[in-house]
Amino acid sequence: MEHTLESCAKAKMAIRDTLDIVGGKWKLVLITVLRSGKKGFNELSREAGISPRILSKELHELEMNGLVSRNVRNTKPITVQYELTEYSQTLEEVLGAMERWGYHHRQKIIMGG
Amino acid sequence: MEHTLESCAKAKMAIRDTLDIVGGKWKLVLITVLRSGKKGFNELSREAGISPRILSKELHELEMNGLVSRNVRNTKPITVQYELTEYSQTLEEVLGAMERWGYHHRQKIIMGG
Repeated sequence: MEHTLESCAKAKMAIRDTLDIVGGKWKLVLITVLRSGKKGFNELSREAGISPRILSKELHELEMNGLVSRNVRNTKPITVQYELTEYSQTLEEVLGAMERWGYHHRQKIIMGG
Repeated sequence: MEHTLESCAKAKMAIRDTLDIVGGKWKLVLITVLRSGKKGFNELSREAGISPRILSKELHELEMNGLVSRNVRNTKPITVQYELTEYSQTLEEVLGAMERWGYHHRQKIIMGG
């Protein structure tokens, strides 16, 4: 890969864009948790270990960016479920790469390398 | 890919590990900037658009995790340069995936999709 000023600026912008959308402590963790299927709010809060206040904000942002959909079901009482959108599948490559890196990094630390 | 409880917990931990090391607003941007070669502190601060106080903290953390090395050169006045370590190259896959995703996401937004 070439590292010209232009290609670096482009790379920097693209990486910043990605971080703006899915960076931060929780968004990719939430997406990972939702990969196993749709979930209710409390279930998500418990499985991801996120406080309700922060979860609500994070889910809203994921929804705004077309990565999660919020479905209100006409039950009594009303139930709300969150699930990944089709578009969220475009993140598979990012998630896979981060998963592999995290795994190998932990091995390296454990091996004392 | 299978989504069992166990594989999901493992994926979640690995992604969290990666976010712990290179998550946040700046680390991957700094690594991208350093891909074009070693740089001094002020140069990095300018190119990445990071305040000196935050840059200093971020560089220290990258150094602790073996991703950046800090080289003091015996000049007058002393000069300090930062460069990527060989280990940082293990992040190429993560960076490449994030770069591609950010690029395509921006196209999608521009196209109004």
